[in-house]
Amino acid sequence: MKNNISCDYSHVEAFSDPSSVRQDIVQSAQTLMDGSGAGAAFRGWLTLPEQYDREEDARIRAVAQNIREDADVFVVIGIGGSYLGARGAIEALKGTFYNELSPQKRQGPQIFFAGNNLSGTYLRDILTLLENKSVYVNVISKSGTTLEPAVAFRLITKELAVRYSADELRKRIIVTTDATSGALKDLADKKGYETFVVPDDIGGRYSVLTAVGRLPLAVAGIDIEAMMRGARDAMKLYDAPYEENPCYHYAAARTALYRAGYKIEIFTQFEPAWHYFAEWWKQLFGESEGKEHKGLYPSSLDFTTDLHSLGQYVQEGERHLFKTILHIEETKDAVVVPDDGEHDDGLENLSGKSFDVLNTAAQQGTLIAHADGAVPQIVLSLPQQDAYYLGQLFFFFEKACAVSAYALGVNPFDQPGVEAYKKNMFRLLGI
Amino acid sequence: MKNNISCDYSHVEAFSDPSSVRQDIVQSAQTLMDGSGAGAAFRGWLTLPEQYDREEDARIRAVAQNIREDADVFVVIGIGGSYLGARGAIEALKGTFYNELSPQKRQGPQIFFAGNNLSGTYLRDILTLLENKSVYVNVISKSGTTLEPAVAFRLITKELAVRYSADELRKRIIVTTDATSGALKDLADKKGYETFVVPDDIGGRYSVLTAVGRLPLAVAGIDIEAMMRGARDAMKLYDAPYEENPCYHYAAARTALYRAGYKIEIFTQFEPAWHYFAEWWKQLFGESEGKEHKGLYPSSLDFTTDLHSLGQYVQEGERHLFKTILHIEETKDAVVVPDDGEHDDGLENLSGKSFDVLNTAAQQGTLIAHADGAVPQIVLSLPQQDAYYLGQLFFFFEKACAVSAYALGVNPFDQPGVEAYKKNMFRLLGI
Repeated sequence: MKNNISCDYSHVEAFSDPSSVRQDIVQSAQTLMDGSGAGAAFRGWLTLPEQYDREEDARIRAVAQNIREDADVFVVIGIGGSYLGARGAIEALKGTFYNELSPQKRQGPQIFFAGNNLSGTYLRDILTLLENKSVYVNVISKSGTTLEPAVAFRLITKELAVRYSADELRKRIIVTTDATSGALKDLADKKGYETFVVPDDIGGRYSVLTAVGRLPLAVAGIDIEAMMRGARDAMKLYDAPYEENPCYHYAAARTALYRAGYKIEIFTQFEPAWHYFAEWWKQLFGESEGKEHKGLYPSSLDFTTDLHSLGQYVQEGERHLFKTILHIEETKDAVVVPDDGEHDDGLENLSGKSFDVLNTAAQQGTLIAHADGAVPQIVLSLPQQDAYYLGQLFFFFEKACAVSAYALGVNPFDQPGVEAYKKNMFRLLGI
Repeated sequence: MKNNISCDYSHVEAFSDPSSVRQDIVQSAQTLMDGSGAGAAFRGWLTLPEQYDREEDARIRAVAQNIREDADVFVVIGIGGSYLGARGAIEALKGTFYNELSPQKRQGPQIFFAGNNLSGTYLRDILTLLENKSVYVNVISKSGTTLEPAVAFRLITKELAVRYSADELRKRIIVTTDATSGALKDLADKKGYETFVVPDDIGGRYSVLTAVGRLPLAVAGIDIEAMMRGARDAMKLYDAPYEENPCYHYAAARTALYRAGYKIEIFTQFEPAWHYFAEWWKQLFGESEGKEHKGLYPSSLDFTTDLHSLGQYVQEGERHLFKTILHIEETKDAVVVPDDGEHDDGLENLSGKSFDVLNTAAQQGTLIAHADGAVPQIVLSLPQQDAYYLGQLFFFFEKACAVSAYALGVNPFDQPGVEAYKKNMFRLLGI
């Protein structure tokens, strides 16, 4: 029998009782499933793993395959939900140094992200990285009017237009946008760019399993079919009644902790390649719950790296935080501590031990230390680091987030506060 | 007249009164300066900018110059304070894509960081990146017994020993460690490695201006003399009485906010290259203050990137946070939004505007939006992005941190909580 995601709440019990919020979570799950809650029109992600467009998926694979064969560099232009999921998944499965590896080791193009800030320095460097390279671009924007990707797209296409004919350029620009309307859709139609769809019923932070995430992932050589299979299995697993539903249990545990006065949820892992997955997770929860002066503040730490940084605070600072630990069960590459007989540092008996053994000891040691430090801890175990389980994990957090937000009494699917800075910025720019 | 770092507290006044803690800050500053407080033996950083060893500095420059000429790859092995300052400074001044640029553009070796986690996958990738490259290593550890760098150092030297003769290897390993004793110092002496000193009176998180930071920075081509000059000027500037001391004002503002119930300090900037500087900042404050169940939780966000992520939370979530914004005054590369006449997205009048203008508007727009959202905001202005001002900035935060920690009633210079996970981990590993 295949293992699935499982959570251990034994390090939560001393601090709050998840079952105390059982009724609220059951009610919130019902609200989500029957579409009676706020933002119900944005629940397309709930059924996406079964209902996604297979014709579009075939086109995504074909386009990705072509890009993998022909591109040196693939630039993804998008911000927020239009890039965090793809970046998180690519780094988690392909490693921290994917772009630095040789083309032979990488077996696919370098992948850079642009349109996710307004720094001229950053964009100038991106342009430098495109010099003398075969470049493909995927611009991702529902409306086409979000400032950051819109201006980055202008700059990068202008640069590419110098070196490619109009015909050639047309093949190298792929647009992921609204199905029928909007500035970017209009442009794509006019120019004849290949287009993929950001569905109307799925908001940015829930969109990683749509074409928004699937094209970049496929370009990186990630098995998107396996990912969707994982998400499909997750759909069924997390449709179970509360008692057998790990997804609802996680929503309950974090909700109970919040109500008990814990205000910060720290996502941690012991594999640095999962750093950007945590960024996706932070957007998902922060943007869904941070409303009406409520919600857990989502934060993330990379361990053991940050045990030598914020570790002190986690151990002994204000007791207003709890941790959600991603534990990867799989044993990975057997890199082993060598014995050169030269060191006299008290660590000699580690010789011959794999780094996995050390890292596991660090994880267990940290769990004990932070339990002693009165930090509530949820341990989420992922059986393997692969596309299938990543699909499960994306869906797990999406559903847990929506249920948590309803339990908090907010709309999980809007983001009214994001408009505030935009409105002021546009006014200052005279737009 | 040269400009210096300045702070604007106009967006704090509505939430707390920094002058209410004036007496405590003056007292804490006195405690720091006269050495009457806890951890007084670790105040070497306070006078370092004047008193650092010039002979060692000349050797650092010479070694760095040799590495710049001969290395393709420079690996810095260290964790916590033994790498965060260098990494933050290198990325801030050399850009996010320093390692991906061509050797011609970079004009120096690639710089990778290892020994800062226990991931076998990460180390395997690092070894791959060293293949067929001229490699130099700087291992940084006061004691030589910290697990992460100790085992990474073993693995990397074993790999290099295969390809380099003992004589050649000796020239390629540089050790930064205790001046007289410890496992790493003993090894260096035995092998004849070049060594630089981690001073006894400066803890890891305050060590960026010692050889710990200066060698990697010099290898990256950063003007470390200018940096030390900036730090030296900062020493004098921040020795002023409270009324004229921006460093004390910052300590006062954040202390007053903490006492007023704000529990999270978010460091933000609008230049993604400063991302890792924020990691240095988080260690400095989190490890200095997170004690006795007290202290601000230090967090960081990259804007505008994260305005499309945690921006919602900052705007409308729990009102327990404030922002410290790094504002860089300098106008940078004039990358301009091109006009291709093809877009119909309402942004046409941005054509010809520089990204700096857009980014500045985003910064001002965000300031207004978050003020409307009842977020206290401190704006710290840095005149330029260069080594000189970075030296000022490092010293500014170090001194503000020590004064803040004394005002909080904790020892700014110890980290008792960091031992907890280590102790458990070592027990599990049978050490």
